[in-house]
Amino acid sequence: MYRSHSCGELRIADTNKDVILAGWVQKSRDKGFMVWVDLRDRYGITQLIFDESRTDAAVMQQARALGREFVIQVSGTVIERESKNNNMPTGDIEVLVKELKVLNSSEVPPFTIEDDTDGGEDIRMKYRYLDIRRNPVKNSLLFRHKVTQEVRNYLSNLDFCEVETPYLIKSTPEGARDFIVPSRMNPGQFYALPQSPQTFKQLLMVAGMDRYFQIVKCFRDEDLRADRQPEFTQIDCEMSFIEQEDILDVFEGLTRHLLKTIHQLEVEKFPRMTFDEAMRRYGNDKPDIRFGMEFGELNAVAQHKDFGVFNSAELVVGIAVPQAAGYTRKQIDELIDWVKRPQIGASGMVYCKCEPDGTFKSSVDKFYDQEDLANWAKATGAQPGNLILILSGPAYKTRTQLSALRMELGNRLGLRKPHEFAPLWVIDFPLLEWDEDAARYHAMHHPFTSPKQEDIHLLDSEPGKVRANAYDLVLNGNEIGGGSIRIHDKETQALMFKHLGFTAEEAQEQFGFLMNAFQYGAPPHGGLAFGLDRLTAILGGQETIRDYIAFPKNNSGRDVMIDAPSAIAKSQLDELSIGVQLS
Amino acid sequence: MYRSHSCGELRIADTNKDVILAGWVQKSRDKGFMVWVDLRDRYGITQLIFDESRTDAAVMQQARALGREFVIQVSGTVIERESKNNNMPTGDIEVLVKELKVLNSSEVPPFTIEDDTDGGEDIRMKYRYLDIRRNPVKNSLLFRHKVTQEVRNYLSNLDFCEVETPYLIKSTPEGARDFIVPSRMNPGQFYALPQSPQTFKQLLMVAGMDRYFQIVKCFRDEDLRADRQPEFTQIDCEMSFIEQEDILDVFEGLTRHLLKTIHQLEVEKFPRMTFDEAMRRYGNDKPDIRFGMEFGELNAVAQHKDFGVFNSAELVVGIAVPQAAGYTRKQIDELIDWVKRPQIGASGMVYCKCEPDGTFKSSVDKFYDQEDLANWAKATGAQPGNLILILSGPAYKTRTQLSALRMELGNRLGLRKPHEFAPLWVIDFPLLEWDEDAARYHAMHHPFTSPKQEDIHLLDSEPGKVRANAYDLVLNGNEIGGGSIRIHDKETQALMFKHLGFTAEEAQEQFGFLMNAFQYGAPPHGGLAFGLDRLTAILGGQETIRDYIAFPKNNSGRDVMIDAPSAIAKSQLDELSIGVQLS
Repeated sequence: MYRSHSCGELRIADTNKDVILAGWVQKSRDKGFMVWVDLRDRYGITQLIFDESRTDAAVMQQARALGREFVIQVSGTVIERESKNNNMPTGDIEVLVKELKVLNSSEVPPFTIEDDTDGGEDIRMKYRYLDIRRNPVKNSLLFRHKVTQEVRNYLSNLDFCEVETPYLIKSTPEGARDFIVPSRMNPGQFYALPQSPQTFKQLLMVAGMDRYFQIVKCFRDEDLRADRQPEFTQIDCEMSFIEQEDILDVFEGLTRHLLKTIHQLEVEKFPRMTFDEAMRRYGNDKPDIRFGMEFGELNAVAQHKDFGVFNSAELVVGIAVPQAAGYTRKQIDELIDWVKRPQIGASGMVYCKCEPDGTFKSSVDKFYDQEDLANWAKATGAQPGNLILILSGPAYKTRTQLSALRMELGNRLGLRKPHEFAPLWVIDFPLLEWDEDAARYHAMHHPFTSPKQEDIHLLDSEPGKVRANAYDLVLNGNEIGGGSIRIHDKETQALMFKHLGFTAEEAQEQFGFLMNAFQYGAPPHGGLAFGLDRLTAILGGQETIRDYIAFPKNNSGRDVMIDAPSAIAKSQLDELSIGVQLS
Repeated sequence: MYRSHSCGELRIADTNKDVILAGWVQKSRDKGFMVWVDLRDRYGITQLIFDESRTDAAVMQQARALGREFVIQVSGTVIERESKNNNMPTGDIEVLVKELKVLNSSEVPPFTIEDDTDGGEDIRMKYRYLDIRRNPVKNSLLFRHKVTQEVRNYLSNLDFCEVETPYLIKSTPEGARDFIVPSRMNPGQFYALPQSPQTFKQLLMVAGMDRYFQIVKCFRDEDLRADRQPEFTQIDCEMSFIEQEDILDVFEGLTRHLLKTIHQLEVEKFPRMTFDEAMRRYGNDKPDIRFGMEFGELNAVAQHKDFGVFNSAELVVGIAVPQAAGYTRKQIDELIDWVKRPQIGASGMVYCKCEPDGTFKSSVDKFYDQEDLANWAKATGAQPGNLILILSGPAYKTRTQLSALRMELGNRLGLRKPHEFAPLWVIDFPLLEWDEDAARYHAMHHPFTSPKQEDIHLLDSEPGKVRANAYDLVLNGNEIGGGSIRIHDKETQALMFKHLGFTAEEAQEQFGFLMNAFQYGAPPHGGLAFGLDRLTAILGGQETIRDYIAFPKNNSGRDVMIDAPSAIAKSQLDELSIGVQLS
């Protein structure tokens, strides 16, 4: 037994107890006749006191030799502190040390092990095992564990069965790029790592498993955008004999359970919005509804005058920014530059100040009179004191640009409060989306998603208009989950593959095992998958996932701590019947 | 809502209720004016009745057209059965059907969906989604879920934090063969899939995580013996500031918790045995202690006569087989043939019948008199009616052969009762084992295992005699878990690598990140990993793991259901800068 108590445990009621503690030296202060050491473990910090009048001289000497991050074990007595620290749970006491044993020494760490460290991202990743000693990272990992435990308990109580599906599966060209694994026992052949357990969970429904879930790693070999990881974790779920409403019920229940157990929040029934409505009102299929600034379409009130830019645009659309009528010319120019950046790509922006006195002042006053501008205010819901910002151009692109601006302003104005939670279902997604490069339709969700019965007749004539039984769960402007009711008959699945440009042979070759399974009594089924990394981060009040992953990879897919990937021996490649062919 | 109740739910108290059920047609019987259908889902079977006098003619016709494994939805009324079936929970009632909807038809399945199926292993694996519909497989998967939930709850309650470690890591030549994954973004470089999260869990200890666990897939690219899988699941655990006794306590507690919650069994404190003792008493480091037949060493009582075979042997060792003195010559010859098979490799076997009347009859009566044989009986603990079986030769090899015979007889005699559970700790494993082929020592557990302090002085002189702080948890003759107290200082770790034949450079290159981490205050730590597949199977009363894995691979590492691994497109290989090189 290295310790009788943890470093977060002792309280005033423990006074006079003899205790043994072990942990890391957070810091020490030498005041001549006394030395104080903050001893840290996972559970907290306890102050140790070494006092010349009460502590053995040899132990005093040991204490003075301690460096930061030394691992020590001490035995001593709990005493009441003279000056209490109300900011820490153990702040009423300290441990008067009798014996000290150095369990391990430490080099000076390359950055300070403090909440606000002096270490940059790169050095913290290289020494991630030191970074995790810091509260923000450690607490994120503990938080993630709590979330997954709550998820598992909730689903298990509803008769969901966690089933492990294989990691060494088959490569399919649909979807993102696979990571592949050469097979030594089957030379020239390869496994793929799963992008998701999609087909396996559907097979489990065919197998009668009825309610399945799995918290599982998935893999996508894509160029890494910020905050994307090549391996990521899903809460993958599937149910049989259900309709869309049943799925929304269960997973709304799960999300509500998490908000309640983790944040003691009771949330109303989640609002729902169709994909079309979300795009129209927020320019975005995952709107953050914690704040307003809803889109106001201005075509009817802005295209009747001589302003050519608006007249020639497919869409003129604006938002009313609260408390921004007083922005200076410089502030507004900065916003205009912001939307003109290549990442956003707007060609310009019109503004209209709604002065507190009820008058308007716009950048296009020579084309529009006060009455016109009053109509703009009405369409965007602008109040006196607001600033209306207006973009125009092709409808989809313009909405996307204005959505980016809305989110940016939401951040700048502090409207996106991390600990306010606004879940939302977005439903009725399109089944297909046009891929300009490939000149073909792609499945917007995936090729197993069922079309809405009432839209199937449009598959030949207007495939882009067919809606799917597909839904996303959005939390605070982030998609945290998405799913669909699946196709469960072979004919519809074959029709779907046809519309995705597969020949019957290609479909059979790649998805034959699923289509064959559908011949043997597949039940109606559907499901949903949460992105656990993001879900946890959002619930934790963060938007970046990196601190919720113990050992993340950088943007080149490298683990800089262990230095992977790396070259391997030729003999290893030979055994696998492959060779490196650098071009 | 496709159903108001599951097929396992309705009871006599539900009589007269209008219900909706959905599921698969297990079987149907057409008695002319009545049709009965057994409707099955995950939760059970409910009998449906279609009766010409009470059911619509069109529905009767539909019912008669149903085939096995059709997926249907029915609505009807719960009625009391005329002839009740006490063998099923719903056996008191049946549902008189009013409406029937075929949700999906089914081809005739390639094997019967019954507990005792007519399908062989190969066809069941190819159609695993049908195999899982059978109770034995379905229940194994549900059982596995229950085990993992109990494990997670138990460990979480003890403050263990589940942390996900990466799957795309670095290849190291130590241990088994890695599966590797080419990196597209780092051409010519490869990730490896983890054989275990060993180094990461140790880094989490350095990181101060204190108590870690993870239920995690691991990968070994080894030639597959029966009942081995290339991907398998571990319950991986690690603790800081502990000694061996603490680890044994916690995981004995976990195992006891499983036996209690799953089998309502209270088990005594687990017995412990050193590796040496286990080898001496059972010829095996994972002895099945549910039955006796302990080894009796006979050198002292068998090497004083003219029987050259025994006199020249390093070890003469026997077991007493209960109730086998009456074996015929033919039965004994069969046993002799069994130990002489190449898999066992004994050159012969001596026997001695302990007759009920107290006399002895052996195959070597011309060398040994009754008094000698009485001494053999004493040494092996043989009673009248037992058959003593004796092997001789080099000590280790002979013990291993006799152990195989003991287990075989345990099986044949029904002494290995599947629902009797006898856990055992085997401790004090050797640190190193000699590898004849490589002419070097290997780490018996792994290179991070600490030697016993009192044996370190033997590292140079007699490395094979150094014992490790290593332990296995054995259940019913199977190793279900194993672990060790780790080395936590850089010097001992370097010493260990030296004795394993690594140069300092090789050690730094392969394990530098761990040894570097040890410079920054590594705490004393240790852990254990359970093999979840085997643990679950044993707890389920089985010795084969295959039905506890949803989608297992065959002995060539193939998933015959999805037909993986498979060839992939050259463009995919080109992107990864690799090519196939068949020799």
